[in-house]
Amino acid sequence: MLAEFSITPIGKGVSVSAYVARSMDIIDKSGLPYKAGPMGTCVEGEWDEVMALMKKCLDAIMADCERASVSIKIDYRQGKTDALTGKLKSVEEKLNREIKK
Amino acid sequence: MLAEFSITPIGKGVSVSAYVARSMDIIDKSGLPYKAGPMGTCVEGEWDEVMALMKKCLDAIMADCERASVSIKIDYRQGKTDALTGKLKSVEEKLNREIKK
Amino acid sequence: MLAEFSITPIGKGVSVSAYVARSMDIIDKSGLPYKAGPMGTCVEGEWDEVMALMKKCLDAIMADCERASVSIKIDYRQGKTDALTGKLKSVEEKLNREIKK
Amino acid sequence: MLAEFSITPIGKGVSVSAYVARSMDIIDKSGLPYKAGPMGTCVEGEWDEVMALMKKCLDAIMADCERASVSIKIDYRQGKTDALTGKLKSVEEKLNREIKK
Repeated sequence: MLAEFSITPIGKGVSVSAYVARSMDIIDKSGLPYKAGPMGTCVEGEWDEVMALMKKCLDAIMADCERASVSIKIDYRQGKTDALTGKLKSVEEKLNREIKK
Repeated sequence: MLAEFSITPIGKGVSVSAYVARSMDIIDKSGLPYKAGPMGTCVEGEWDEVMALMKKCLDAIMADCERASVSIKIDYRQGKTDALTGKLKSVEEKLNREIKK
Repeated sequence: MLAEFSITPIGKGVSVSAYVARSMDIIDKSGLPYKAGPMGTCVEGEWDEVMALMKKCLDAIMADCERASVSIKIDYRQGKTDALTGKLKSVEEKLNREIKK
Repeated sequence: MLAEFSITPIGKGVSVSAYVARSMDIIDKSGLPYKAGPMGTCVEGEWDEVMALMKKCLDAIMADCERASVSIKIDYRQGKTDALTGKLKSVEEKLNREIKK
């Protein structure tokens, strides 16, 4: 499955990039294929491994945070792999040109 | 934590209420406190039990479905219980009147 | 169309119900059919009127707020009305029983 | 503001990349700064221009589609520009290394 998620600390001020960095460090070292975007990070893997990774990120943020808002969007598709790059490639083939990604 | 989620089967036609019913049946029998809304169902519980419930719903839908889109939004707050009813109660207290819910 | 949305102020502390109340007051007085839930409010109407309502809520919150996170989920369906109550009614008919809503 | 959005046609089969391509073509030609990701496209601009762009994409998809699910997530921040690249740059500065994006 392909999942995009973001964790936003509530009550830790307006700038939260230090918290996002904690989370990104864990994702980057997880070994799972990922792609970071301005509004969330996409990770590809099985349900259990992706959810365990999200929980690890959330725990790292909640270490000194009282409240966080988590947003998750999943594209669950039987027998599909490489959705992380394959989905946009398929769109570009239809358009016959590259898009900004 | 409080989580709202929805599972939408892709490629099973325009009307998907039969699939939503499968999911709702599992949530209703789970024993976890919940509140169904027109765009998703809110469930309150610990991370592990809520995620296990979502996976059970997803498996029931994927039994005869090739693709599904899952949307999850979580309000994770240390030491808070009864957010399922407490959040709107707190808003109504601020407004000094009832709202439609 | 049916839209669920929530606006979360970032950097205004852990408890944000005073801000949610501002938004709810505007929705309640808008005249559009709505249903408030613990994680967001569902509103039914045409694209322009629903988007104008959201912007009005956002402006009320941004009056003394530097940053906010907005989440919107839309079910856009040709020729459908009364989705606010109709969607769950259709699920209950399939289950032959009432669910908690 | 920075907005990520995705439009999923419901009832048009399992593969929807032809519809996504229609939407992407409109975004690409809009002139607004954007970045496409596997789960949605981020666009930066004022509320009115971003919402008008989304509506244009939705109309293009609804031309031969009965139902669509739209997901929008907005980071609304006073006086911030270049969030499309700035947010991840700020995270990379905190980590002192590049991440996959």
